[in-house]
Amino acid sequence: MTAVIDALPEEAPVALVYNGSTAAVMMASPFDLSEFLVGFAVSEGLIDDPSEVTEISAIKHAHGYEVRGRIPEARSTMMDARRRASVGPMGCGLCGIESLEQATAFPGRVAPMAVGLEGDARSALEALNAGQKRRDQVGAMHAAGFFTKDGLIALREDVGRHNALDKLIGALSGTDVSGGAVIITSRLSVDLVQKCARAGISGLFALSSPTRAAVELARETGMTLMVLRREAVVAYTDEKEDCA
Amino acid sequence: MTAVIDALPEEAPVALVYNGSTAAVMMASPFDLSEFLVGFAVSEGLIDDPSEVTEISAIKHAHGYEVRGRIPEARSTMMDARRRASVGPMGCGLCGIESLEQATAFPGRVAPMAVGLEGDARSALEALNAGQKRRDQVGAMHAAGFFTKDGLIALREDVGRHNALDKLIGALSGTDVSGGAVIITSRLSVDLVQKCARAGISGLFALSSPTRAAVELARETGMTLMVLRREAVVAYTDEKEDCA
Repeated sequence: MTAVIDALPEEAPVALVYNGSTAAVMMASPFDLSEFLVGFAVSEGLIDDPSEVTEISAIKHAHGYEVRGRIPEARSTMMDARRRASVGPMGCGLCGIESLEQATAFPGRVAPMAVGLEGDARSALEALNAGQKRRDQVGAMHAAGFFTKDGLIALREDVGRHNALDKLIGALSGTDVSGGAVIITSRLSVDLVQKCARAGISGLFALSSPTRAAVELARETGMTLMVLRREAVVAYTDEKEDCA
Repeated sequence: MTAVIDALPEEAPVALVYNGSTAAVMMASPFDLSEFLVGFAVSEGLIDDPSEVTEISAIKHAHGYEVRGRIPEARSTMMDARRRASVGPMGCGLCGIESLEQATAFPGRVAPMAVGLEGDARSALEALNAGQKRRDQVGAMHAAGFFTKDGLIALREDVGRHNALDKLIGALSGTDVSGGAVIITSRLSVDLVQKCARAGISGLFALSSPTRAAVELARETGMTLMVLRREAVVAYTDEKEDCA
């Protein structure tokens, strides 16, 4: 049995270029690219506020997509310094210990999650499921959503779970995130906690168990980490401890 | 309801260090680290043969794990050159077009998959499921296995799907891979095809649909790409075309 491939999800190399210099090339679903550029800059700590990315444009090349933007010169200088000591596939040239310290830099603490927000997570998940238009078309898509007491207010999709979160963070530009939380369809690894913390997000909900490192970082940052199980919402962080 | 976290999967930063210089820091399950170091070097094209990595040692630091090895000096020089033009999170400093060309470098063609091997995939999957000891303990683990006509001959686990594949490729050091194929529990993105092609693997089986880019790269490299569905084994590459 041979399948037709017309309905498969697209995945393309996307170069995220700030001030003429590539910060990363990610395999991603090639849509919502401006938000991807902004969200990545926030979630990777290049900038503090989404409004710092300006002059955004996206170009399709033979080998993939290029998304360009400008960030303040001081940020760009810092990015160059970080690049010289960067980690990731085909990394940095540092020794192992220095690299490990770079990779585990503390992202800073977040404010406590709005009281009782876990009571709204189940209906936010339903809205997330209902809103996954791309998955309905081609399957195999992760989604990240942001919800408050008022329901789901943003949703972004991507074949990659990190990218879906980055696009969401970019889409939240100008939104006060203090009253809400992120819900994501993927597994909960520590790097998602790190990205959310850098974006100032106080709560993170998922559908399957987190890693131990994810729980530990959430505790250190004061983030509420919860998993929506069929039978219950399970908390992996102790709120009393976080508010102490 | 608050969960205990004792039984959660471990995830730690692992620095992969060749000739004293870090090629990557990956969030990974901290076991099978020697195989991880070897497999990553093969699957990322640093070396051609697993035997080229020597003097392997692993050290636990406060911030994570460091795995060290030596590769031939000529390979190391090439790695340094690639690092200067590297991609990945916090990348390269190249312009967007150059970065995209780097990221999509052709991994080379592979030999045709052994005839009829798809008939052994279903029992290999059963053996893979039965052999996932780590998942049985803590859940949330990906697994990558290698099987031939004689059944499943290697299996490695990790919280990250790329890492599981890299560990497997390292574990296959000294094994003739021409008669077998890889089976993996994760989704099928293009980077997995790229890693398998660099390791000379002719067949790749998964449980859910590939991306279109994965199918296209598999066709270019001559790799057989198949998905085990409940009702059938679905081929995403045309073998006649590949054998032409």
